[in-house]
Amino acid sequence: MLLKILENKDQFQPGLSIDCVIFGFHNNQLKVLLNKTQYSDQWALPGGFVPVDEDLDQAAVSILYGRTGVKGIFLRQFATFGKVKRNQSDFSQKVVQFYGLTPEAAQWYLNRFVTVGYYALVDFSQTVPQPEGNKEVVEWIDHSAVPELILDHREILDTALATLRTELNLMPVGYNLLPEKFTIPELQKLYETILGRQLDRRNFLRKITAIGILIKLDEKKSNVAHKAPNLYRFDKERYEEVVKNGLTQGW
Amino acid sequence: MLLKILENKDQFQPGLSIDCVIFGFHNNQLKVLLNKTQYSDQWALPGGFVPVDEDLDQAAVSILYGRTGVKGIFLRQFATFGKVKRNQSDFSQKVVQFYGLTPEAAQWYLNRFVTVGYYALVDFSQTVPQPEGNKEVVEWIDHSAVPELILDHREILDTALATLRTELNLMPVGYNLLPEKFTIPELQKLYETILGRQLDRRNFLRKITAIGILIKLDEKKSNVAHKAPNLYRFDKERYEEVVKNGLTQGW
Repeated sequence: MLLKILENKDQFQPGLSIDCVIFGFHNNQLKVLLNKTQYSDQWALPGGFVPVDEDLDQAAVSILYGRTGVKGIFLRQFATFGKVKRNQSDFSQKVVQFYGLTPEAAQWYLNRFVTVGYYALVDFSQTVPQPEGNKEVVEWIDHSAVPELILDHREILDTALATLRTELNLMPVGYNLLPEKFTIPELQKLYETILGRQLDRRNFLRKITAIGILIKLDEKKSNVAHKAPNLYRFDKERYEEVVKNGLTQGW
Repeated sequence: MLLKILENKDQFQPGLSIDCVIFGFHNNQLKVLLNKTQYSDQWALPGGFVPVDEDLDQAAVSILYGRTGVKGIFLRQFATFGKVKRNQSDFSQKVVQFYGLTPEAAQWYLNRFVTVGYYALVDFSQTVPQPEGNKEVVEWIDHSAVPELILDHREILDTALATLRTELNLMPVGYNLLPEKFTIPELQKLYETILGRQLDRRNFLRKITAIGILIKLDEKKSNVAHKAPNLYRFDKERYEEVVKNGLTQGW
């Protein structure tokens, strides 16, 4: 795929790439969608180049689909990374050798690439990578077990997670990540998994109900022996309002 | 200056630019630092190109200094703009004609430029633009009176202001924008000016004191006839802690 791009490099924005950080949640686990590169044993964020005739945001969607088979995900841009030496690495040299690139192609590829980061949070059990005609391995990897990544991809991943954690203070999460009916402890586990720390049960209950996005159902969780917890669902209309207008009433 | 860049275009990242949105506050006014272009009567955000041997964030600082003479400002990156046709405009054609660019130089200049936006908020009375050896006009323009801007600069400006307003929910502002000793109504005015709307006096007082960054002084504002308001100053150490860790105690 890279060779095809290099043969048509005039069709791509020079020195610009996109990297996607796709977080997956399911059953209290936080995972990250990664590619195992063909060129080395290292893992990488799914990324690629920007066609000259495609809007940047649209290119992110196309790249994610092309590298992983995953589509229909709403990607948010979060930061652009542009250190002078960010893609000067052993990895880049391996790629040049792997393909036996011409000096001209190697030059294009080894120039500094400024990369625009996009992230998303999805239910990984619903989001199955299906790479087509591609020998790349694509996998959901536990966030706590992410191995060494190529280039500055670890920094990009960490920045995305920091952004997601900040977003928790600005908007609710949970819709499409939890079953339609869920308990408050299940919702709290989602927040704890993203934040990577325990939360106080009472404080969480107070804050989450204050947002006004939960509807208490006249049902309790079944298959629970003792003190079955109440089930809730999201008030979709109110939820979307809060996503749009922000969580804090602000000033 | 553009001609010099075009003569040395191999020294610059192709298809990548930077635009700076510098908000200025003083005495309840919100202004924006703008350049009047040489090529037309239109105004523009101070922007420029990225040298291949300069980190992206450092290039933003250099560009701001080069275009306006303003330095020592902490710039935050906020978004990257990359629509296919973003710099295909009458303005770009005027620039090509103004300089009588060669076809090759025109091509370089007319290709899509993806632009990285940076913003800052400063005291405009302390931040005097001093363009050197440059016929460009640089001015602080009232935010409410910003005229039509080139390309998508209005969208970039609006996105920067939306980001700044969101930031108010994540961290305090005021340090370096107010006199060392100030009253709560003065601080409230700063927030109202940024938000572009009135705030309830009691709610503001309650929320701002809850942050714990204010020290009440044993002094009242002088030259005020009746019911002189108390003076405050920022607890610098605590203020910086909150800037670092975020305003909301979070979850």
